Amino acid sequence: MPDVTDCTAEYMNAGFARPDAPDIRTPFIEIDSFRLDRNIAKMQAIATASNVLLRPHIKTHKSIEIARRQIAAGAAGITASKASEAQVFIEAGFPDILMAYPVILPSTIESLLKSARTKGARLAFIAADRTGVQALNAAAIIAETILPVFMKVDVGLGRVGVKPDTEEAIEIARAIDEASNLNFAGLLAHAGHAYGAPSREHIAAIAEAEIHSLVDLSNRLASFGFSDLKITTGSTPTAWGAPIAKGSDEIRPGNYAFLDLTALRLGIATADEIALSVISRVIAVNDRYAIIDAGSKMLSSDHGPHGTGGGGFGKAMAIDGDDGLAAFEVERLSEEHGFLRLDGRSLAVGQRVRIFPNHSCAVVALSDSFIMRDDAGSDRRFTIDGRGKVI
Amino acid sequence: MPDVTDCTAEYMNAGFARPDAPDIRTPFIEIDSFRLDRNIAKMQAIATASNVLLRPHIKTHKSIEIARRQIAAGAAGITASKASEAQVFIEAGFPDILMAYPVILPSTIESLLKSARTKGARLAFIAADRTGVQALNAAAIIAETILPVFMKVDVGLGRVGVKPDTEEAIEIARAIDEASNLNFAGLLAHAGHAYGAPSREHIAAIAEAEIHSLVDLSNRLASFGFSDLKITTGSTPTAWGAPIAKGSDEIRPGNYAFLDLTALRLGIATADEIALSVISRVIAVNDRYAIIDAGSKMLSSDHGPHGTGGGGFGKAMAIDGDDGLAAFEVERLSEEHGFLRLDGRSLAVGQRVRIFPNHSCAVVALSDSFIMRDDAGSDRRFTIDGRGKVI
Repeated sequence: MPDVTDCTAEYMNAGFARPDAPDIRTPFIEIDSFRLDRNIAKMQAIATASNVLLRPHIKTHKSIEIARRQIAAGAAGITASKASEAQVFIEAGFPDILMAYPVILPSTIESLLKSARTKGARLAFIAADRTGVQALNAAAIIAETILPVFMKVDVGLGRVGVKPDTEEAIEIARAIDEASNLNFAGLLAHAGHAYGAPSREHIAAIAEAEIHSLVDLSNRLASFGFSDLKITTGSTPTAWGAPIAKGSDEIRPGNYAFLDLTALRLGIATADEIALSVISRVIAVNDRYAIIDAGSKMLSSDHGPHGTGGGGFGKAMAIDGDDGLAAFEVERLSEEHGFLRLDGRSLAVGQRVRIFPNHSCAVVALSDSFIMRDDAGSDRRFTIDGRGKVI
Repeated sequence: MPDVTDCTAEYMNAGFARPDAPDIRTPFIEIDSFRLDRNIAKMQAIATASNVLLRPHIKTHKSIEIARRQIAAGAAGITASKASEAQVFIEAGFPDILMAYPVILPSTIESLLKSARTKGARLAFIAADRTGVQALNAAAIIAETILPVFMKVDVGLGRVGVKPDTEEAIEIARAIDEASNLNFAGLLAHAGHAYGAPSREHIAAIAEAEIHSLVDLSNRLASFGFSDLKITTGSTPTAWGAPIAKGSDEIRPGNYAFLDLTALRLGIATADEIALSVISRVIAVNDRYAIIDAGSKMLSSDHGPHGTGGGGFGKAMAIDGDDGLAAFEVERLSEEHGFLRLDGRSLAVGQRVRIFPNHSCAVVALSDSFIMRDDAGSDRRFTIDGRGKVI
C-alpha cells in the first residue's frame, strides 16, 4: 500500500498537480469539473461493460448538479441514505431513488412518500428485520401505494442486514413478500469492509465473496418460490478497484465521483483522479508548522470511511510561489486551524495550499457550497443541496 | 484520569441520567436548558469572583439564543473565530465582539467592518505578525475606523502567536502601536495545550505558566512605553479546571457552555454538568453491535479538541426500556451509522439512546439546529446561526 503521506517523493506528487485555484476567500471546496466528469464516465463505462446498472450514491456529493451529471452519463437512478436526503432529490425531480437505509418507523418516510407521489417518482427501500418490514408496509398503506423493498444482507461489514446463510434470511424475505403493500424486489448489500482491505487482491476477494453469498441466497430463495430477485451491490473499492463480480444487476458506489486519499491508500485510484480538494491559506508560520485556515470544521477529523485510514488529515500542495509540487502533511487539526508539518521547508503567510483530504464525503457534510472549476478556468458556486439532511 | 468509556461502572453512569427526550424524529442535538444555564452561571461566578471579565467563545454553540443568555448572565462581550461567524452575531445586534483569529488580508473583514459600522458595534482583532498588522490597518483605513488589536502570544500550543520572550514580540507590538488606524489593546493567548494535560494539577500549571509569560511580556513592553495593556486568556480547561491565574483581565472559554466527554477525561467536569447530547435511535441489532442512526455526519469523528482524546466516539445511555443507567460505548462510526458495543447486553430496534459526544463543538458544526429542552419538559428548536461560517 503506497505511503501517501510520504511528501518528499516528487514523482508521487506530480499526480496532485492541478490548475490554479480561483483567488477567492478561503477556505472552500473546489470540485475539478474535468476530473469529476472523467470519474463519472469511467464508472459508467465499467458498469456498462459489466452489464450492470449504475445507481450512484449521492451521499458523497449531496449535489443536484452532480447527480444530474451522473444521470446524463447513463446512471439508472440514484441512491440516498436518509429520508430527508432522498427528499431533496425527489423534489428536484429525480424520478428513481433507492433509499438504502433502514426505515423502522412509518413516520420517517411519510413526507418523502408524499413528495414522491406529487412528483411521480419511484422510491425503493430496504428492510433487514420484521420491524423494518412492518414500518414500510404501514407507511405504504397510509400512502396508498406499493413500495419495492430490497432485503438488506450483511456480507461482512457487520452493520445492518440479515446474514445470508440463515433461516432468518428466508423468514424476512417471506415477511417482505407477504406484506400487503410491499413488493419484494431483491437483495441489497454494501461491502464497506473493503475499505479495510490491505490490497486490490483482497478487495477483489471481498467483492467475489459478496456476490457469491448473494447469489447463493438468491438461489435458496428461488427454491422457496421467490423469483425475479435483483441483486444490488457496490462500494467504490469493489466497483473501481476490482472486476465487477458476475451476478450483480446493479452497483451503487458513491465516493468514486470525487475520490480521496483513502482511495489512494487502497491502491484503487491515482492522485490525478481525485476531483475534490480544499483550498486553504497559510495564516501563520511557526518553527514547526505552517498554520492554515482550514481545520476540523472544514476538513472533518475523518481518517477514512468506516473508521479506516492512516495518520494525518490530508496532503497539502503549495499553490503559490513554487513549482506546485511541494507537499505537506496536514498533521493536526484544531477546529479552524490546520497544522502543516514543515520539516525544514518553508511556506509564507498568505500562500495558498490545495488539500487532498482523507474522506471527501465527510468534507462535503460540513460546507454549504462548493466551487465547480472547469477546464477553461471559470468557476461557479453550487449549493450542497443535501447537506445536514441526517434525519 | 477516569476511564469514561468504562460503561459497566453504574455509580459513574448516574451522572449521565437525564429527563426523557422529546419523542421526535432522530437524530438531533438536545441542549439541556437547565444545565446550560447552570454552566453559564458557574463560569460567570468564577469570572466575577476572580475579578476578570468573561467573553465567551461562541464557536462552541454558534447560537444567538445561547450567546444572549451568556450576555444576560453578565458576559462582557463575545469571542468569535472567523469573520463570517462574527458577522452573524454583529448582525444579530451583539455590540462587542473579539475576533480571535488572525486576519492576513484586508478583504477578509471588509464586509464585517461595514456591518459593525451599521450596527454601531465594537470589534477587536488579533495580530501575530507584520502581515496581520498591515492587513488590519489597511482594512481599518478603508473602513475609516480605528481598530483595537491584541497581539496574539503563543504560550505553548505551538499554533499562532509571537513567542513571549523574543525580540519579535516587541517588534510586532511596536508595529501594531505605530499603525495609523490600529490601537494596541493588549495581549491575547489561548492555552489549548491544556487539553493534553494529564491532570488538573498540570492544567493549573499551564494556566500559571501562561499568565506568567504574559505578565512578563507586559512588563517588558511597559519598559518600552506601552501602558494600559489588557491581558486576555482562557480556555475551558484553564478557566473551569483551575484557579483563574492572577494577572488576567478577561477570559474567553467556549466549551464550558456544553462540556463533553473530553472535559470528563480531563477531570474538570462531572457527567451531570454536560448540557449537550445527541438523541439517536437503534435501527438494527447484530451479534456484536446495536446500530444507531447517528454516524460521523452527526457526531463528527472527533476524539477531542486539538487532536486529543481516547478511543471511541461517545457514550450512549439507553433512554427507553430500562432504568436509564445502561451505557454503551460508541465504538465505530460510518457516515450515517453508529456502532454501540453490546458486550452481551441487549438493545432493541426502535429504542432511543442519548449520546454524550467527545467534542460538543464539533457536533454543533454539523447540524442546522438543536432542540432546547427546558426543566418543565417543553422543547423548542433553535437554528445554529453560525453553522458553516468557516470563511
